[in-house]
Amino acid sequence: MSRPAESNKDMTSLAARIRTGDRATLARAITLIESKRADHRSQAHRLVQALLPHTGEAIRIGITGVPGVGKSTSIDTLGTYLTGRGHRVCVLAVDPSSSRTGGSILGDKTRMPRLAADDSAFIRPSPSSGTLGGVAARTRETMLLCEAAGYDVILVETVGVGQSETAVADMTDFFLVLMLPGAGDELQGLKKGIVELADMIAVNKADGDNVARARAAAAEYRAALHILKPPSAAWTPPVVTYSALTGDGVAELWRAIEDFRDKTAKAGEFAAKRRAQQVKWMWAMLEDRLHERLRGDPKLKAKLPQIEKAVAGGTLSAMLAVEEISAIIGL
Amino acid sequence: MSRPAESNKDMTSLAARIRTGDRATLARAITLIESKRADHRSQAHRLVQALLPHTGEAIRIGITGVPGVGKSTSIDTLGTYLTGRGHRVCVLAVDPSSSRTGGSILGDKTRMPRLAADDSAFIRPSPSSGTLGGVAARTRETMLLCEAAGYDVILVETVGVGQSETAVADMTDFFLVLMLPGAGDELQGLKKGIVELADMIAVNKADGDNVARARAAAAEYRAALHILKPPSAAWTPPVVTYSALTGDGVAELWRAIEDFRDKTAKAGEFAAKRRAQQVKWMWAMLEDRLHERLRGDPKLKAKLPQIEKAVAGGTLSAMLAVEEISAIIGL
Repeated sequence: MSRPAESNKDMTSLAARIRTGDRATLARAITLIESKRADHRSQAHRLVQALLPHTGEAIRIGITGVPGVGKSTSIDTLGTYLTGRGHRVCVLAVDPSSSRTGGSILGDKTRMPRLAADDSAFIRPSPSSGTLGGVAARTRETMLLCEAAGYDVILVETVGVGQSETAVADMTDFFLVLMLPGAGDELQGLKKGIVELADMIAVNKADGDNVARARAAAAEYRAALHILKPPSAAWTPPVVTYSALTGDGVAELWRAIEDFRDKTAKAGEFAAKRRAQQVKWMWAMLEDRLHERLRGDPKLKAKLPQIEKAVAGGTLSAMLAVEEISAIIGL
Repeated sequence: MSRPAESNKDMTSLAARIRTGDRATLARAITLIESKRADHRSQAHRLVQALLPHTGEAIRIGITGVPGVGKSTSIDTLGTYLTGRGHRVCVLAVDPSSSRTGGSILGDKTRMPRLAADDSAFIRPSPSSGTLGGVAARTRETMLLCEAAGYDVILVETVGVGQSETAVADMTDFFLVLMLPGAGDELQGLKKGIVELADMIAVNKADGDNVARARAAAAEYRAALHILKPPSAAWTPPVVTYSALTGDGVAELWRAIEDFRDKTAKAGEFAAKRRAQQVKWMWAMLEDRLHERLRGDPKLKAKLPQIEKAVAGGTLSAMLAVEEISAIIGL
């Protein structure tokens, strides 16, 4: 693990070095972003602010998929296809359950062998901040750093646990859901919340004997999407098939994403989504901080278990409990 | 509209009179609950707290349905069936879009003619507090008053706009989704979020020529529920058919709700859900109050438009905006 930047480092100069695209500097700056030390947090704030004018040019793509869908191979194949076309690709992850060990970086190198050896690609495992909010916030900031360093395609992987898919959809322009061709019961894997997030469904393993099954699965997903998700004015989420193994369909998959960007940009939806994401993120962080202060209040901490118990037991009305808590914290 | 209780009214005595079941007193107390005057709010808090030991015996049922499903007739028919079996039925509504005029009460009388003339039923239109949070909070408190007044079945109607269904599901024991028999495309009406809330789907208009279509629709909904909603240990949401017009199937519908209550009570899920709802409600109210204070802060109000604009425009990082706001409000 690299060492956080020294506390007296000039953030403007660090920002300038990140913009040269130097990978070691970028990695070190991300470690600063991920640090929980108060002085590092404050440096990180200034660093992100200094880099802000140089961010936003990349396309940000969230990627999720059921276990076994071949997510790593898909990212390896798509990423390599993109660097071959001159793109610079950054792979990030949001996995609140990850524990940060040397193993996870090694794991990423094993999971995506071609991208890991690709000079035009930068892979960073999930920060391990514990809470989803913390992990998502660090990943957002890391994304901005990568954009400032010249990466123009950001792939943000999510493990699809709990609310992590929503968190990733909230920080990306395009949300890609990878699926498997199954034997009937296609809808099984289509989790409720996923449908409303998906900008495209891509069915992997459309190769060899599986091509027909993948196409049949795609048709079923298409029908489900049609029923369950109303299209926006500019974009109707398509369902495509591809093979991470052979690369078949990957060009078409990418073309659909470019098509999305063109159409939603023209309609003004692309920029509007980003603006809304920014403001939403600000309020989310503010609420996190309010809750932190609220739950961290020592006077409240002492009395909260008793209040919650009385409310759960029905002897204290929720309304009066709110009055009590407000009085305790001086609200 | 009845007059709010006098400000010097003894809440203990008002509570006692509510418990006699006097309808005029109940109506007047609800008007007090719905008042926004600070002194009335404080009286309302004391009133609810005084009545709390006499609440909780009723079964609380949330009811939603697509426009045209015959929600009013269904409630009229179900409610009349229940009062005929000795129950006392209260009908409330959560409709943040309603505007409180004489007309809405008249409307309820027209919408549910049998119940409106039934001495064992009490119908109260949605409070018109403007925000969903406000409307839901008032409806919760009204529900408690009705329970203290001896009503043992509370039906809470929702219009199904935005988050109002979730708000109603969060205050009820059982969430009933009414559907129509359609011609194919049955899933069309099955909104994403609804499936996870539904404790039962009931297909209306299973009468005359429609019986076969209603049964076919029920089979489709059954398959969709099976795929999309994992059952709890104690309860697998059933799909039934009924006719609000003829009353066919209404007894079976009610039996399913009683069955739900028995099974989840035995498993401990019924009481656990209520306890969780209480605590969740307390935190929701507390958050509402925090946000109110936050957004109402005059110093912040003056600067917020500028900050939000800078964040949306990408010239100020969301992180630094949070720092700025925190400094302004002294967090």
